[in-house]
Amino acid sequence: MKIEYEVLKFIKKYDMYEDGDRILLGVSGGRDSMVMLDILHKLKDNLGISLGVAHFNHSLRETSDEEELFVKSECRKRSLPFYSKKEDVKKYALENKIGIEEAARELRYNFFNELLEAKRYDKIAIAHYSKDLSETVIYRLVKGTGILGIGGILPIYKNVTRPILSLNFEILEKYVTINNVKYIVDESNFDTKYIRNKIRHEILPKFHEINEQYEDAIFRFAEITWEYRKYLEVIYNERVKIEGNIYKILIKKDFLDKEILRMIFLNLGQFPPSKLEVEKILSMKSKGKRKINNLFLEKEKNMLYISKEVNTLGGE
Amino acid sequence: MKIEYEVLKFIKKYDMYEDGDRILLGVSGGRDSMVMLDILHKLKDNLGISLGVAHFNHSLRETSDEEELFVKSECRKRSLPFYSKKEDVKKYALENKIGIEEAARELRYNFFNELLEAKRYDKIAIAHYSKDLSETVIYRLVKGTGILGIGGILPIYKNVTRPILSLNFEILEKYVTINNVKYIVDESNFDTKYIRNKIRHEILPKFHEINEQYEDAIFRFAEITWEYRKYLEVIYNERVKIEGNIYKILIKKDFLDKEILRMIFLNLGQFPPSKLEVEKILSMKSKGKRKINNLFLEKEKNMLYISKEVNTLGGE
Repeated sequence: MKIEYEVLKFIKKYDMYEDGDRILLGVSGGRDSMVMLDILHKLKDNLGISLGVAHFNHSLRETSDEEELFVKSECRKRSLPFYSKKEDVKKYALENKIGIEEAARELRYNFFNELLEAKRYDKIAIAHYSKDLSETVIYRLVKGTGILGIGGILPIYKNVTRPILSLNFEILEKYVTINNVKYIVDESNFDTKYIRNKIRHEILPKFHEINEQYEDAIFRFAEITWEYRKYLEVIYNERVKIEGNIYKILIKKDFLDKEILRMIFLNLGQFPPSKLEVEKILSMKSKGKRKINNLFLEKEKNMLYISKEVNTLGGE
Repeated sequence: MKIEYEVLKFIKKYDMYEDGDRILLGVSGGRDSMVMLDILHKLKDNLGISLGVAHFNHSLRETSDEEELFVKSECRKRSLPFYSKKEDVKKYALENKIGIEEAARELRYNFFNELLEAKRYDKIAIAHYSKDLSETVIYRLVKGTGILGIGGILPIYKNVTRPILSLNFEILEKYVTINNVKYIVDESNFDTKYIRNKIRHEILPKFHEINEQYEDAIFRFAEITWEYRKYLEVIYNERVKIEGNIYKILIKKDFLDKEILRMIFLNLGQFPPSKLEVEKILSMKSKGKRKINNLFLEKEKNMLYISKEVNTLGGE
């Protein structure tokens, strides 16, 4: 029960699930999602949760339908509800002028969220593990990020949970061997993202040459940033009041002003402004105004007001 | 004055130098240190500082003595005091059973610190730039680190300053071209460090393929962690009292407890304990004791005592 126990501890540490939660697992049929399925199935009674499985059929390979049948039969074996949807990802990508990977992601999450509502599930579980985390940490670091961003993928964010995020490659391999978990091998052949591939296949192997435990090292680093985020959320709740559409922030002239400002942008579904822009916003004089994307910012004494509409003070 | 101005702004932002400071520049004669020498020489009157140059002759190449003469003549051109010392690094490395790079570093810093005392210099200036910073960020991330550690090289730490840390590769190249700065090309041929070389020559070029401005992206990320460190130092001073050899920490049961504990280890010249160890220390019950390396830790109600000696409470 060693590996299952590690997952259980991780789930409890981050309060991922509550007693009675109905969890919808996103399962492609690949190794990672089959490990997640197998482990959560073993842990569900202990956690007091019930499971359902959602499989999105991307129609991207000749074997797509076989893969769907494989996941279906694995669910039947475990007496788990199975849902699937088939869509033409290529067509959707062309129509919307986006990449295949982005189209697949969009359609997949649409399907998950439809199910969440229709079948009354509480949370989604995604099978990201620590190599995915490492990849995201490097991606963000190289592209530009802050302390909140570098932690990459979070164990729980809104209704998305990642119960096997703490497992590394070796542990996944060990788990499928010991437990004879069946899975589809060529899962992510359609991952055409140039940068992600470069990180995964050219950079991470070099990290492995430097430190065979690099996934764990990066995982522990990310955990520290998650703890930091949790600390920041407490301060955020002390300093930020939301009234209608307006975020009112008490400016204390310390470093946390900047972090709270970034967090508000994230909470509004936007990328935080550049470091320079953040500094400009916070150094505005009283009555100063700025517009960033579709957000309006206004300073009034030691308060900063952020809203999606023009007249932040007094309304229209 | 564009590039010089950027350096001036960076020096002022981090309060690197005070009016009247005597700064000792470590100059190998390579591109980076010659750029630092040239820029600080132009800025010295503006900053109100005076300069001296220290060249450590590693005796590692046939050209070592020529290099020393080159730096000496560049100093004479600018009427700057020049100091040099020649030592047999290879011999020292063998005798002390350490690597060439480590031996060179040790002897070089010994020489700088001797000069600091003998010639009454206030601070040392080292020519690390943003690629060195990127290298250190990756090195630490892959080996294991926290938010305090990932920021890598600091602009100012104790008496060591890094005035050109914000400059990237392209800017350095531009500066030497525009200003016709002479330098020795094969400066770091003796850098035999396997991991550093792998990062610099195999990993960073891949970062460059993903984002040509990756050095700046990592620099800005590091800056956020430096600001965070500054914030933490304020909290540190509120919660930590030092009496004799004993660090007394007020435990508030928040995330910052952990960060302050790590900072104390750093201030005592030690690596912070592992994440798990930090958690164990802070979850000790009252009267609980632990020993880590040569440090003794003792919990007493909401206080944690750390010292290098056995009897933390009451003393010998």
